[in-house]
Amino acid sequence: MDKFKVTFYPDKKTISVAKDKTILSAAISAGVYINSACGGDGVCGRCKVIVKQGQVNSQASGAITLEERKNNIHLACSTTIHSDLEVEIPESSRLNFDKFTPEELEERLSGLYSKTENIQPVKANLQEGIFKHSPFATKLYLELPAPTLDDSVSDLERLYRALRSIEKFPVLQTGIFNIRQLGELLRDSEWKVTLTLGKRNDTIEIVLIEPGNTTHKNFGLSFDIGTTTISGQLVNLNSKKILGTKTTYNQQAAFGSDVITRIVYAGQAHGLEKLHNAVCDTMNQIIRELVSEHNVDLNDVNCIVCSGNTTMIHLLLSVNPAHIRKEPYVPTVNFLPVVRAAEAGININPRGLLSCVPGISSYCGGDTTAGVLSSGIYQTDKPCMLIDIGTNGEIVLGDKDFLVACAASAGPAFEGSGVTSGMRAASGAIQKVEINKKDLSVSYSTIQDKKPRGICGSGYIDLLAAMLNAGIIDKGGKIKATGARIRQTDTGKEFVVCFKDETDLISDIVINEADIENLKRSKGAIYSATAILVKHLGLQLSSIAKIFIAGGFGTYLDIENAIKIGLLPDLARSKFVFIGNSALAGARQILLSNQAMAMADLLACRITYFELSVDPGYMDEYSQALFFPHTDLAKFPTVKY
Amino acid sequence: MDKFKVTFYPDKKTISVAKDKTILSAAISAGVYINSACGGDGVCGRCKVIVKQGQVNSQASGAITLEERKNNIHLACSTTIHSDLEVEIPESSRLNFDKFTPEELEERLSGLYSKTENIQPVKANLQEGIFKHSPFATKLYLELPAPTLDDSVSDLERLYRALRSIEKFPVLQTGIFNIRQLGELLRDSEWKVTLTLGKRNDTIEIVLIEPGNTTHKNFGLSFDIGTTTISGQLVNLNSKKILGTKTTYNQQAAFGSDVITRIVYAGQAHGLEKLHNAVCDTMNQIIRELVSEHNVDLNDVNCIVCSGNTTMIHLLLSVNPAHIRKEPYVPTVNFLPVVRAAEAGININPRGLLSCVPGISSYCGGDTTAGVLSSGIYQTDKPCMLIDIGTNGEIVLGDKDFLVACAASAGPAFEGSGVTSGMRAASGAIQKVEINKKDLSVSYSTIQDKKPRGICGSGYIDLLAAMLNAGIIDKGGKIKATGARIRQTDTGKEFVVCFKDETDLISDIVINEADIENLKRSKGAIYSATAILVKHLGLQLSSIAKIFIAGGFGTYLDIENAIKIGLLPDLARSKFVFIGNSALAGARQILLSNQAMAMADLLACRITYFELSVDPGYMDEYSQALFFPHTDLAKFPTVKY
Repeated sequence: MDKFKVTFYPDKKTISVAKDKTILSAAISAGVYINSACGGDGVCGRCKVIVKQGQVNSQASGAITLEERKNNIHLACSTTIHSDLEVEIPESSRLNFDKFTPEELEERLSGLYSKTENIQPVKANLQEGIFKHSPFATKLYLELPAPTLDDSVSDLERLYRALRSIEKFPVLQTGIFNIRQLGELLRDSEWKVTLTLGKRNDTIEIVLIEPGNTTHKNFGLSFDIGTTTISGQLVNLNSKKILGTKTTYNQQAAFGSDVITRIVYAGQAHGLEKLHNAVCDTMNQIIRELVSEHNVDLNDVNCIVCSGNTTMIHLLLSVNPAHIRKEPYVPTVNFLPVVRAAEAGININPRGLLSCVPGISSYCGGDTTAGVLSSGIYQTDKPCMLIDIGTNGEIVLGDKDFLVACAASAGPAFEGSGVTSGMRAASGAIQKVEINKKDLSVSYSTIQDKKPRGICGSGYIDLLAAMLNAGIIDKGGKIKATGARIRQTDTGKEFVVCFKDETDLISDIVINEADIENLKRSKGAIYSATAILVKHLGLQLSSIAKIFIAGGFGTYLDIENAIKIGLLPDLARSKFVFIGNSALAGARQILLSNQAMAMADLLACRITYFELSVDPGYMDEYSQALFFPHTDLAKFPTVKY
Repeated sequence: MDKFKVTFYPDKKTISVAKDKTILSAAISAGVYINSACGGDGVCGRCKVIVKQGQVNSQASGAITLEERKNNIHLACSTTIHSDLEVEIPESSRLNFDKFTPEELEERLSGLYSKTENIQPVKANLQEGIFKHSPFATKLYLELPAPTLDDSVSDLERLYRALRSIEKFPVLQTGIFNIRQLGELLRDSEWKVTLTLGKRNDTIEIVLIEPGNTTHKNFGLSFDIGTTTISGQLVNLNSKKILGTKTTYNQQAAFGSDVITRIVYAGQAHGLEKLHNAVCDTMNQIIRELVSEHNVDLNDVNCIVCSGNTTMIHLLLSVNPAHIRKEPYVPTVNFLPVVRAAEAGININPRGLLSCVPGISSYCGGDTTAGVLSSGIYQTDKPCMLIDIGTNGEIVLGDKDFLVACAASAGPAFEGSGVTSGMRAASGAIQKVEINKKDLSVSYSTIQDKKPRGICGSGYIDLLAAMLNAGIIDKGGKIKATGARIRQTDTGKEFVVCFKDETDLISDIVINEADIENLKRSKGAIYSATAILVKHLGLQLSSIAKIFIAGGFGTYLDIENAIKIGLLPDLARSKFVFIGNSALAGARQILLSNQAMAMADLLACRITYFELSVDPGYMDEYSQALFFPHTDLAKFPTVKY
């Protein structure tokens, strides 16, 4: 069988592959991650690469223009290899790391960037500090009395005796690993040791025993594992201080953009393994960068708490998620046991523990539980709503007496995936857009004021609102205006937001009618879920006291514009509160307090899952929401274009 | 460096070794186990081999006669290799497996062979059946309702829910291994599965999940890991029936005969690893033979309970026992956590559990706890004594109100180790001896009436008593008679029990003055420990209601002769009860009942360890016991020679 060498730039990674393999599969084998939202179906056009050298066979696709073809730009997923190749992966097709400083990111994630004046700052609303400080992994320094002929209890019982004299533990346990080292360790350290105690289900495990006093070195990680993006935080477990935060694309994106595509992929040969490795690689890379930037020894990271949707958590632990997508939509597990991080393929201290926030159902995972925990809506007097807009949109309605959750498959459009020029809220993303009504000229600002690389979720919301305002699109989302920025393509009309000469890109930054359709479906899915959930509980939208908006894009969300396009209900603006990444905040609370961990368990039991698709009114409500802002304008009284 | 090939017969195992290595070290590397009681010091003479081909360099040793040398018989430990070799290992130097049928062995171990008429049969005294049948691993068959849209709890919670509806468990847990298989397993088995539940400290673990109903296949093993011999039993955990029992030499004997030699060896490079591997190999061989003889699938063996002295248990779990022999004699651990048998290197079901009976101190291990449990002395009204005669002799005195234990380093002489013609109570062992006073002719019987291979513990007791009776030895143990069977050797006098032409051996079966000295020290150590313990508690020997005799040799013990040589105190014969291997019986009780497991934990806490060596009267008492039967004949009023 013919074998060809393919070299990827700028990574300079070379791999030998068989003839007729696609460039995408070669890239995956080489460990080079290319965005591939549709999972390799040649539809999304996210995986454009430049073939600099060599022969390929490329299928025609609406996602590639004639001009791009002339410039040797191809879709990696639909292009097979017919000779040795040199392939350049442009910035826009890469699954890249943030170039944010930790401080910038932390500021962003804390949600303080609310741009609508009458919105309360988030920190007041996050439930930090209401739980007692009792981290998942706690260090305890002990000075033991040396044994004598009169006090000759064994080394391990000596340790247990000292521990029990300090605190009453329900059940103490440790593994043979620690016992094997114990004799020498106690004597070499002159009976002065530090124990790392971890909560393991209903027992306390002695995770580690170290010589001397190492209590000042105790770190943990909280993670939010999203379908599209993954965020990780390094936390000092003693001071509760967040040392740094990193967000990056989930490398699983190379295997499809939504959970359904991933579940299908997991069913293929080695699919589960590849998806598992991709999420581990992403997390391990975040961890490596965090510990290196903050001069933390990986061995001093003793625990991780992960929130994530049910499919993501299954994949993290190599549990086949197959049954999540088959009626009656049952996951294998919602409450996962605490495991060693190493068992899940995550590199921290080899004995360190990993806990997953318990999930509610197949389509409401631990990220929702964590969001309910950190938003605090489980203890409010009046009904509040939590809207977490990710690839799946989760909506929870409730108060101290009841909590009901539903999931809307919004798709990743607001995370900048599956739309032509989309990108997540990272450096160079267009996050704010205005259009001059007269000449249709565009002004925009990018994150960190870098040259524009694409449009993130908040940018799209602004863009849609501005296009509606300027009359570029009608209420159905069709482009009806004409001008220099409006072009006809093979697949319909597009509007140029930013010409490529203003960028370092190989194409213009555009929004086309397919993108608008995509965004419309996303906003329609979220809005109609909101409406159905309220109706299901016999409430009115107006009776909701607060609406907490969470999600990777939420930190920049312009509420006014979000209402204008019909993503959020048209309520008093003061009711909206941005809380940023509430799943990550909840995971951090759990990391820092065993009380919060116990509360998360309770919440996962308390929250009732409501399956939208079984509600007879859902399809009707959804169809009505497929207009800007809505078919029934009476529902959006303040909206005027 | 020169390398030579050494082939061992009858194993036909060949290994390549460097010049100047000893034959013993070559044999260990080749996996051929040679008896080496002194740990390779050239003293014990147990490791005689015949060099059939090739050149060796052999150090002179009192343990080899000139005639043996002429016949190319050498000590494997003191003979270095100088060419390719062919080496025959005679039967008497091998660490061999029993050729007993399981039935024979079981009968023996049950202790029914008491030869003194007025001794109660043991079964009445063993505490079988007083604990509720609740095995260490229990199987439970469940038929789960299939999930529906209205009942969509996750697979794992469905399992937990069904379990909890049957019984209240304190804490249920399972590992990620089972969860990974769960989704397919439940569906493929149409929601009918069998759980194996194991007690893991204070929680219940779902050890295994199997499709269908496999409750009829649930087996476990109990083990007694002695310094010299290891016994294992295969038990049907449902019916409580013992399927078979095997006893063999601990392959660690190649590294020294007593715990102190082993501890020293463990401190050498790779010593701990070698000792660990030797005990694992021994146990795994017993297990393989047991399951194969009883047509049990190794995967259906779900748990093991091990009793053993503290050093043996440390070595089984690869915990360095170094500090056991250093003042203040502290072991690393007495209460070991339950581990997977695989973690300890023991081959049963890869997920199967292993529990060690908790020990009391460095020199009173879990074998003593198990003995106290099975003898039932912890619940008697009047003080009783348990004497377990092994390489270490453990003695426990107590009743329902108190329990005190001590340990006497008896040495392995009564287990047939460290004495010229000694062997353990296996096929061909001389177990009963009489000597004609007139012509000093010897009559004997062997186990299974095979040609004699050596003398076991009960044979030595009879032999010593007969030699005293016949006036062959004096009360100090010196050979004073003359005759055809009495010979002078380089190292003193010896008495021929059995000439080699009656055997298949290469030497006569003899007892020499060094052997007698050795046996005298053993019996002196046991007797004086008994006496000191009674005195320490302010009691009289005569006030002891029952004396339970346990140990590998105890099953054949002639009480009359044991009192005659001063091993046991001169009390009413009706007070003595043989209970065979009480440590193995206790381990089996624990295997079959979680109540017994909890009781063993309690007992290990309740039993007080008394260190003999700190008692000012001990050395005096010991010296007085170094006569047959004793310096103070008033203590043995019924003994007449």
